[in-house]
Amino acid sequence: MSIPAADPAAGQAVKAADRAHVFHSWSAQALIDPLAVAGAEGSYFWDYEGNRYLDFSSQLVNTNIGHQHPKVVAAIQEQAGKLCTLAPGFAVEARSEAARLVAQRTPGDLDKIFFTNGGAEAVENAVRMARLHTGRQKVLSTYRSYHGATGHAIALTGDPRRWPNDTGATGIVHFWGPHLYRSAFHAENEGQECERALAHLEQTVAFEGPGTIAAIILETVVGTAGILVPPPGYLAGVREICDRYGIVFILDEVMAGFGRTGEWFAADHWGVVPDLLTFAKGVNSGYVPLGGVAISPRIAATFAERPFPGGLTYSGHPLACASAVATINAMAEEGIVENAKLIGESVLGPGLRELAERHPSVGEVRGLGVFWALDLVRDRVTREPLVPYNASGAANAPMAELATACKKRGLWPFTNMNRFHVVPPCTVTVEEAKAGLAVLDEALTVADAHVN
Amino acid sequence: MSIPAADPAAGQAVKAADRAHVFHSWSAQALIDPLAVAGAEGSYFWDYEGNRYLDFSSQLVNTNIGHQHPKVVAAIQEQAGKLCTLAPGFAVEARSEAARLVAQRTPGDLDKIFFTNGGAEAVENAVRMARLHTGRQKVLSTYRSYHGATGHAIALTGDPRRWPNDTGATGIVHFWGPHLYRSAFHAENEGQECERALAHLEQTVAFEGPGTIAAIILETVVGTAGILVPPPGYLAGVREICDRYGIVFILDEVMAGFGRTGEWFAADHWGVVPDLLTFAKGVNSGYVPLGGVAISPRIAATFAERPFPGGLTYSGHPLACASAVATINAMAEEGIVENAKLIGESVLGPGLRELAERHPSVGEVRGLGVFWALDLVRDRVTREPLVPYNASGAANAPMAELATACKKRGLWPFTNMNRFHVVPPCTVTVEEAKAGLAVLDEALTVADAHVN
Repeated sequence: MSIPAADPAAGQAVKAADRAHVFHSWSAQALIDPLAVAGAEGSYFWDYEGNRYLDFSSQLVNTNIGHQHPKVVAAIQEQAGKLCTLAPGFAVEARSEAARLVAQRTPGDLDKIFFTNGGAEAVENAVRMARLHTGRQKVLSTYRSYHGATGHAIALTGDPRRWPNDTGATGIVHFWGPHLYRSAFHAENEGQECERALAHLEQTVAFEGPGTIAAIILETVVGTAGILVPPPGYLAGVREICDRYGIVFILDEVMAGFGRTGEWFAADHWGVVPDLLTFAKGVNSGYVPLGGVAISPRIAATFAERPFPGGLTYSGHPLACASAVATINAMAEEGIVENAKLIGESVLGPGLRELAERHPSVGEVRGLGVFWALDLVRDRVTREPLVPYNASGAANAPMAELATACKKRGLWPFTNMNRFHVVPPCTVTVEEAKAGLAVLDEALTVADAHVN
Repeated sequence: MSIPAADPAAGQAVKAADRAHVFHSWSAQALIDPLAVAGAEGSYFWDYEGNRYLDFSSQLVNTNIGHQHPKVVAAIQEQAGKLCTLAPGFAVEARSEAARLVAQRTPGDLDKIFFTNGGAEAVENAVRMARLHTGRQKVLSTYRSYHGATGHAIALTGDPRRWPNDTGATGIVHFWGPHLYRSAFHAENEGQECERALAHLEQTVAFEGPGTIAAIILETVVGTAGILVPPPGYLAGVREICDRYGIVFILDEVMAGFGRTGEWFAADHWGVVPDLLTFAKGVNSGYVPLGGVAISPRIAATFAERPFPGGLTYSGHPLACASAVATINAMAEEGIVENAKLIGESVLGPGLRELAERHPSVGEVRGLGVFWALDLVRDRVTREPLVPYNASGAANAPMAELATACKKRGLWPFTNMNRFHVVPPCTVTVEEAKAGLAVLDEALTVADAHVN
């Protein structure tokens, strides 16, 4: 791929207008220095200075199909020429077809699709359905989780982004999911961790009052909060607890769904079927804002004769739905989910484990598909994280230095707290994945320097 | 405009897939019968049976620029070919330019733009900013209002869509805005109504505790809950109360903004500048999901060195922003806001008042621009609404019959409770507006038959 000639003046103009008028997510506005991006293709994007970056972040873990996939671009252009927008009350081809294709791939009997603009709204509506279906109020979620930034979604979230927002929502209880490397269950192996995490959940349900709990929501594989792959049996155990007490089981696959784990949905790895499944990101790689909830017949039946009290102007947006249709079809035709699986098994998994052998800062390697984390430590024995929980400024310097080392070498990283996430597009090639690992190999010496 | 040949079989297929897999907003899923729509252009859309409808609803009051505006379609196609998506952390041309253009037009000193996917998320983030800026928790909103369907937005909403969702959010207080025709303030004229509504708000603030109130949020012109144009002096009075107590003043212009009232923003009619202004819908006519918050320098400064704890994957989405740039430019070049004003002053206002003279079911005509309501009654003296508050089924029959009468005659209506809203695109022509009024004239005989 050849990138256009550098045009620093154009980049400066873009950045000047950004700094003057764009208010950025999750940021102290005066302390950020956003890179002006000129274009992107496949696994790469580039700036106005002539620098190209291998995107090991998939932006915010959403461009599963890579940048500017020609089939999806063409579908957007075609639908734009036909019909950009239409109210949710009508039936329209792109919406019908997107719902059919999503329903075809979601686990088990989930076959009705409520479309939203993104993941947070999907979670909001899943919680609404669960509360009205059960007539109960409480929702249980895990401390290691991210579920979105609207009213209830941020309250369900476990990570520190919840803290400044931790007012104004009620009926939410946090518990602990399994995480052998860092859990307080003191398990010696995955089987024990699974058993203890389920016992902890069972106790929490009992002490909160089973008859007060509308739903348990989990990320099937926890994403930003650590890429935590559940031990075999955990999800089935949660399913069993939900069944026993009439609790709705919600799996949040906003980040893990649509190929990221090497299956269409992460739940497919364990054959578990939730009552509701939330999705966004990979459904159309974010080419047009889109998310949704896949709904079981039992819950859909609750709203057969009784109005569902939720909605949004752009539910089932034709342009967004057309891009989802093209994305799902392209992923199927081109074996993109299979590629993610293969890259995980043959390149990223072995490659990252090999890095761990040589870099003392790597405490644990975990993941699957194109969804991996390096848990970085100062000490492999004590497992002291490379930076403290929720560190910023000087305390976070080791992670900031690591990110800078990657960027300097043309690799765009995704870091969170003491973790380096390896989350390239599902379309990443063997060569690209290896090139990224080679950069990471060099950059990790920066982290190694902070090992005690 | 010639519409394509009828193709009922294609329409049936679209509808069958819809009924099998699409879960619809605000609906009892088994009781709806969605019309399959084949295409749209300007002020019209059509089905697969060869029926064309004049869209007096602007879908959900969002297609301010009409359907398939060629300049906006072209801009979407061009941006799709260039760069569909990019994470919010970067600077990117379409985002910078959209922010600049929106900031240029928002009232007063509002000059930083936080982009979201729609109106609900805009409200969520405005409330978040207000709470963190003030360090206070309570937010006051009016009973006659709609602010969106996510956690806090639906709790702020006044209309009955809140009722089944009225759990799980705290710190929200509802008060009464001015509404001369139906208020309990027993005022004899707009001046008195304004005065009494402000005294009521002042009392509510005093009894809730001014130091506990983060924000007051109002729709500048209340939309779905009645198209209520505030009396002169009301918004200035609220501004003054906010200033006195350090309360953040949020104007919700999701429906009223971007030309709907015959000005770029409804606030421009009264020269009032809020601290935060929410927008969506008209910013790009919903061609791609987009919303946002325009932010005053005072509030932006709160998040200069301290991170703003909110965000979303698609904040400042390039495709959505490119469509906003093209929409705003087309509206300016083609005098679309001026057209909305002219249509209101010369066709809809006089035409609706003329209908009111001849139809006893019309209790009040109110509105401005392309934003009008007929308040329908059984009795002009008692003002008994044509159907009870939140009626459904048989109790709502008069309104359902009225809607059906319009559809049969090729006019797509927007009704809410006992009101008929006249909300065509801002691009509606004099001829189209008159043609719509002529249909409404015939259809209103259906409502007249229910007058006592």
